[in-house]
Amino acid sequence: MNKEYKPLLAITMGDASGSGPEIITKALAEPEIKALCRSVVIGDAAAMQAALEITGAHGEIRAIKEFSEALFKEGIIEVIDLQNIDLNLLTRGRVDPMAGKAAYEYIKLATEIVLAGQCDAIVTSAINKQALNKAGYHYDGHTQLLTELCDASEVAMMLVSGKLRVSHVSTHVSLLRAIELVRPERILTVLRLTDEAVRKMGVDEPRIAVAGLNPHSGDGGLFGDEEIKYIMPAIEDARRQGMDVMGPFPPDSVFVRTSEGQFDAAIAMYHDQGHIALKMLGITMGVNVTLGLPIIRTSVDHGTNFGKAGKGTADPLSLSQAIKLASVMCRNRRDISDNS
Amino acid sequence: MNKEYKPLLAITMGDASGSGPEIITKALAEPEIKALCRSVVIGDAAAMQAALEITGAHGEIRAIKEFSEALFKEGIIEVIDLQNIDLNLLTRGRVDPMAGKAAYEYIKLATEIVLAGQCDAIVTSAINKQALNKAGYHYDGHTQLLTELCDASEVAMMLVSGKLRVSHVSTHVSLLRAIELVRPERILTVLRLTDEAVRKMGVDEPRIAVAGLNPHSGDGGLFGDEEIKYIMPAIEDARRQGMDVMGPFPPDSVFVRTSEGQFDAAIAMYHDQGHIALKMLGITMGVNVTLGLPIIRTSVDHGTNFGKAGKGTADPLSLSQAIKLASVMCRNRRDISDNS
Repeated sequence: MNKEYKPLLAITMGDASGSGPEIITKALAEPEIKALCRSVVIGDAAAMQAALEITGAHGEIRAIKEFSEALFKEGIIEVIDLQNIDLNLLTRGRVDPMAGKAAYEYIKLATEIVLAGQCDAIVTSAINKQALNKAGYHYDGHTQLLTELCDASEVAMMLVSGKLRVSHVSTHVSLLRAIELVRPERILTVLRLTDEAVRKMGVDEPRIAVAGLNPHSGDGGLFGDEEIKYIMPAIEDARRQGMDVMGPFPPDSVFVRTSEGQFDAAIAMYHDQGHIALKMLGITMGVNVTLGLPIIRTSVDHGTNFGKAGKGTADPLSLSQAIKLASVMCRNRRDISDNS
Repeated sequence: MNKEYKPLLAITMGDASGSGPEIITKALAEPEIKALCRSVVIGDAAAMQAALEITGAHGEIRAIKEFSEALFKEGIIEVIDLQNIDLNLLTRGRVDPMAGKAAYEYIKLATEIVLAGQCDAIVTSAINKQALNKAGYHYDGHTQLLTELCDASEVAMMLVSGKLRVSHVSTHVSLLRAIELVRPERILTVLRLTDEAVRKMGVDEPRIAVAGLNPHSGDGGLFGDEEIKYIMPAIEDARRQGMDVMGPFPPDSVFVRTSEGQFDAAIAMYHDQGHIALKMLGITMGVNVTLGLPIIRTSVDHGTNFGKAGKGTADPLSLSQAIKLASVMCRNRRDISDNS
C-alpha cells in the first residue's frame, strides 16, 4: 500500500433538506480524515456555509468552479458550487424537489470527475428517493443511477461495519423475486466482485463465506434445495477459479462468525439477510460500497435523517467510515497499479 | 408477581453425548438459580455424576425414582434416574442412538410430570436430531415432539436474548414455503400467543412490533405486496382485539429497535429474520420459548456442542437464562391465577 499518497475524493452533498451537509462539516473537521485524504465537496456553497454555522464545526467554506481549482489547504472545505439550492425556499426536514434535483446534479458531476480521472473516488451522502422522483429522476437510489452513469453491467451492494463485510446477491426486489435470483451465474459474479473489493480493502487472500438461502441452509434438502441446485455449483466454480470460498453456511450463524473475523467477507442471498445482520451492529456504523462500477464508490449507510436536519446533532460516523474506506481502497488500487 | 414462590422445574438432561449434562451441573451451582427455583433433572444419574466430575461444579448427585421424592436440599442435584445411558458404551462428541433414545425418554417423562401438575415448567437441554432419528423417533426437534406430547394445535417459537423477544410465523420450512405461510390467520395467532407470553414475562401492556416480509417492507408495494395483502389486515385485527401492535416495519430496523427496548417483542415473518437478528447479539445468550403449549417450556438456544463434550468448558449461560425465564413465567402465571 502506498502510505504516502493522499487520495483525492469527491464527496457529494446529498439532499440539502436532510442532515448531509451538516454531517460533512463534522467529518471533514476530523484530524484523521484530514491526514488520510484530500477532498472536495460537490454541492452548493451557500448550503454548506449554512451547515457549518449550524454545526459550529472547524473550517471555512471556499466556493470553486472546477476540481482543478482545489488547493486542499488545512481548515478549508472546498465546494464545487453548483448554486442549485435557494436557501430561502429550502424546506429542511421535508421532501423538496429542488433538493432532489440538486442531489442528482452533484452525483452526475462527481461521477464525471472521477470517470475523467481528475479524482480517485466518490463518497456519497444520503439522498431522498421521493425528492429525486418528484424532481423527475426515476431511480430507486444511488446504485441504479451510478450504474447508468458509469454504463456498468453487473453491480453488487456491499455493506461494511467493523469486521463484517457483506455482499448481496440481490437488493431491492421482493423476497419471492430474490429467491428466483439465487442462481449460479449471479452468485459467481458477486463472489468475483467481492474477492476483488476485499483485496482493495487490504486483504491479500480473502476468505469468503457464502450463506445458504433456507433456514439451516436447507438441512441437506429437507427444507429447500436451492443450496444444492444453485449455491454449491457457484461455490465450486469460484474455487476452480482460485477463490477461497466456503459454505453454504446456515444464515443465522455465518454473519456473526464473519463479524468475529472468521471470514473476510460473507455473501448474503437477499437484502435482509445481510442488512439485518449488519444493522444489529449499530445503525450509524455502516458503509455502503458499490461493487462492479469502473470507479470506487462508498456511501453512508443511512437515510437523510430529516428528523435531525438543521439541528447540528446528526452523527457523522458512517460518513467518516465511508471516507476512510474509500481512501484505503484508492491507495491499494494505486499500489496495485504502481506494481503492474 | 409472587416473589416468595420458588417454581418447580423439570430440567431434561438432553443428549448425553453432548455438553448438556455438564452445562446443567454448572447452571445449578449458580447462587441466583438456587435462590430462584427448585429443580429436578430428568436424566441418567450416572451420566450426571460423570458430568459433575468433569466440570468440578459444586454439588452432589442424588438419584430418585419419582418427582415426589425430591427434597430440594442445598447443594444436591436430584435426578429422576431413567438409567438409560451405559457410560461404557457412550461415545461423547458423536451421534449416538442410545443417547437419542434416552433424550426422547427424558422429554416424554418431563412433559408428563408437568402436564400432571406435579411441576410448573419444563426446561430442556440440547438434543441431536440425527441421534433422535437414528433411535427411531422421527421429529425435527423439541417443538414438534412437545406439540404432539401436549396435543397442542398451534405453536410458535419465541427467541429471547437481552431485551429482544422475537416470535416466528414459521420456522423449519424452505424460504419459499415460509412466504406462503405469511397469512393473516397465522400472523394473528402468533400475535396472540406473543401477547400472552410477554405478559407472563412481566410486561403488563406489551408493545409488539411486526416485521414486513420484503426489504423496506415492500416500499409501498414496489417490491412485494404481502405487507398490504396479509400483514396489515392481521395487525388491524389484533388492534381490534385490544393488542398494542405496530408495523409492518422494515425487517432491517425492527429487530435492532426492539433490542434497544423500543418494543417488548417483535414478530418475524420467517426463521432467519429473527434468528439472524438474535444471534448477532451473541450465540450463547439466547433462550428458546415454545408458545401455544398448555405448559411453560423454555430451552437452551444452542446445539449439543459436541466439540466441547467431556471437556467441562461449555458455556452454561443459555441454560441459566432459560431457567430464569421459566421461573419468571411460572411466578407470573401463579400470580395471575392467585388474583383470579
